[in-house]
Amino acid sequence: MTKTSAIKGNAVIGQSGGPTAVINQSLVGVIESIGRFSAVGRLLGARHGVRGIKEEDFIPLQRLGKKKLEALAVTPAAALGSSRDKPDEVYCQEILNVFRKNNIRYFFYIGGNDSADTARIVSEMAGAIDYELRVLHIPKTIDNDLRVTDHCPGYGSAARFVASAFMGDDRDVTSLPGIKINVVMGRNAGWLTAAASLGRRDKTDGPHLVYVPEVTFSPKQFIDDVDRVYQKLGYCQIAVSEGVVDENNKPVAVVLAEKFGRQVERDSHGNVQLSGSGVLGDFLAEYVKDQLGKKRCGKLRVRADTFGYLQRSFAGYASPVDQHEARMVGRKAVEYLMSGAKNGSVAITRAKGKPYRAGYKLAALKDVARLIKTMPRSFINNDGNHITVAYRNYALPLVGPLPTIGKLF
Amino acid sequence: MTKTSAIKGNAVIGQSGGPTAVINQSLVGVIESIGRFSAVGRLLGARHGVRGIKEEDFIPLQRLGKKKLEALAVTPAAALGSSRDKPDEVYCQEILNVFRKNNIRYFFYIGGNDSADTARIVSEMAGAIDYELRVLHIPKTIDNDLRVTDHCPGYGSAARFVASAFMGDDRDVTSLPGIKINVVMGRNAGWLTAAASLGRRDKTDGPHLVYVPEVTFSPKQFIDDVDRVYQKLGYCQIAVSEGVVDENNKPVAVVLAEKFGRQVERDSHGNVQLSGSGVLGDFLAEYVKDQLGKKRCGKLRVRADTFGYLQRSFAGYASPVDQHEARMVGRKAVEYLMSGAKNGSVAITRAKGKPYRAGYKLAALKDVARLIKTMPRSFINNDGNHITVAYRNYALPLVGPLPTIGKLF
Repeated sequence: MTKTSAIKGNAVIGQSGGPTAVINQSLVGVIESIGRFSAVGRLLGARHGVRGIKEEDFIPLQRLGKKKLEALAVTPAAALGSSRDKPDEVYCQEILNVFRKNNIRYFFYIGGNDSADTARIVSEMAGAIDYELRVLHIPKTIDNDLRVTDHCPGYGSAARFVASAFMGDDRDVTSLPGIKINVVMGRNAGWLTAAASLGRRDKTDGPHLVYVPEVTFSPKQFIDDVDRVYQKLGYCQIAVSEGVVDENNKPVAVVLAEKFGRQVERDSHGNVQLSGSGVLGDFLAEYVKDQLGKKRCGKLRVRADTFGYLQRSFAGYASPVDQHEARMVGRKAVEYLMSGAKNGSVAITRAKGKPYRAGYKLAALKDVARLIKTMPRSFINNDGNHITVAYRNYALPLVGPLPTIGKLF
Repeated sequence: MTKTSAIKGNAVIGQSGGPTAVINQSLVGVIESIGRFSAVGRLLGARHGVRGIKEEDFIPLQRLGKKKLEALAVTPAAALGSSRDKPDEVYCQEILNVFRKNNIRYFFYIGGNDSADTARIVSEMAGAIDYELRVLHIPKTIDNDLRVTDHCPGYGSAARFVASAFMGDDRDVTSLPGIKINVVMGRNAGWLTAAASLGRRDKTDGPHLVYVPEVTFSPKQFIDDVDRVYQKLGYCQIAVSEGVVDENNKPVAVVLAEKFGRQVERDSHGNVQLSGSGVLGDFLAEYVKDQLGKKRCGKLRVRADTFGYLQRSFAGYASPVDQHEARMVGRKAVEYLMSGAKNGSVAITRAKGKPYRAGYKLAALKDVARLIKTMPRSFINNDGNHITVAYRNYALPLVGPLPTIGKLF
């Protein structure tokens, strides 16, 4: 299909899943490029993702001034509203009905692997009834766990926040020495937790220990690790992913809750609610006090912070690299459609060698939908309690400038 | 006493209490100015505050290069190490012995009201034995609760972090609508919690409710407030100070723990451990679900974040105004000594009118020591659940630039 044969019609764009600090960059990337694509009549924003489509809750997105667009682009979270709906076939049929009714021929969906799957299903259903529809998935997730793409828009900014938080907190922990546990987002993959180490310059700098879901978490090993670091340095800063599980694949939050006779909340899928709660950090701190406190006559300062939603939503501290790339994936989505693409997921590529240079390509929806990408074993040290130089080389170019740290000793 | 009569001797500087993002600016302010004060021989840094003095754990602070000093200045937390020691008379006597032994005649102590009290005691004890000693207290605290000074170095940066966090989180809460509780530091005063409102532009912006320790917290009123906002807007963002107490002056964390049959940790003074734990936020979220969830058939998204130590330690996001003023109070401390001051606490003044202009003066140690300054009632609305314009006018000049926020609806 060539540009000239593009069918005339309207376009809809939606945002889905957990927001990021740059998800609106991608939205603006589409808005500012769509005017060049003459086949598209109106560009409609669906409020709250697929639900907004189903309910025809649209707002017009053309005629927004440059200043308004730039303010929108630097604003965290989904300006259109997001959704956790995971449409089944009936739901997708309703979406398709709305598309036909409004002559929508172009569908941009900014989201993670679930959104890619929705895009795939809608695209296939349209094909089955010969309704000409072009569907472009635009990636976003702070979890960085999408396949094909080298990394995900949204990750660099969350990683910058986490790295900077650990850098400052490390100085705080050495000021009033003790054991500090910081719980980082990421249920299935350790990408964001790994970013805790990006500001580290030598072995005295925290984090001294990093635990990711890719490695089975052993509470006993954890205590031995903490004890060893604390004995050596007199303080210990620890990064723990909210998603760590034990050898039975049981969330550590649950294991420790049972140990201390407590209950934890579960969602409708039976998953322990980890984000928006301090439960894992508090249990881990309690466990460390319980195991190591007696040994030191109770003179052990143990604290836990759960970084929570600030990791994806903190305003004014996004990675400039991430902002640029998130804008680019939006622009590229329009370009791919203009060059005749029927559907796909925009992916970021990385040129070999230094300095860091990103490129873009179109991946098949089926290669991105539903699947997740965990960290390769080479990014995790042999003991499973820290991150390697290979990871640093991968992630450092994505976060932009990190703070300056000076020390007296 | 005039400059020419200043006694020759060495100087010591220490940092105390909970660190801030700019406490090292004050340290650098003293280091870079001390060379102009010919009476001072060596400038020694005491590691971990008064404990470092008692144990003669000193590091020399002169001959540090400009580049190293500037890196130090922008680094959060206490570069010399901090201390929670609250010296009694015996402890102060030991300090004085160390001063005499090392011919220390100048003592700079960067800290809060406890540090001002230590400075006062040491100064009085030196006077009682006719040991000529000059003692300067340099203010710092993210709690902003020191007397005399218009505001405290450290507050503007913590307030900037909190304001920006609420701005981004507000967008996150409207993306995936629900009830969001954010717990902010401040055991006795609501200054930092009030900063949650600094990025607010209209009544739809969060935080929609702000609870500070200056006003008795009524769990029933809280639920009514949240219900009203949620019914009106479909979402609700709430700022709660970690230090809120009920009508019996009982910490709300304890009240709710008892309601849910849980235990909370207490420190050696019997205070509930609030920082470094998600307990208050988790209990409040549970309480909201318990009270409002049934009414809405359980379809209520309630989340809590506890901002924790990031508020005082986050690297790379300090307020430029705060950085400057924190540097200035260090420089002024040296100036006051050079002009013959015997002791005192450096205070910031504010010129009447706009634009904002800070000045500096020397306050008496006794007027700062031990005492705390809560928010005036005029900074809190009549209902005790939000902040007034008077507070905004007071605090906005202190935080520096806030992020840009754009909206579609």
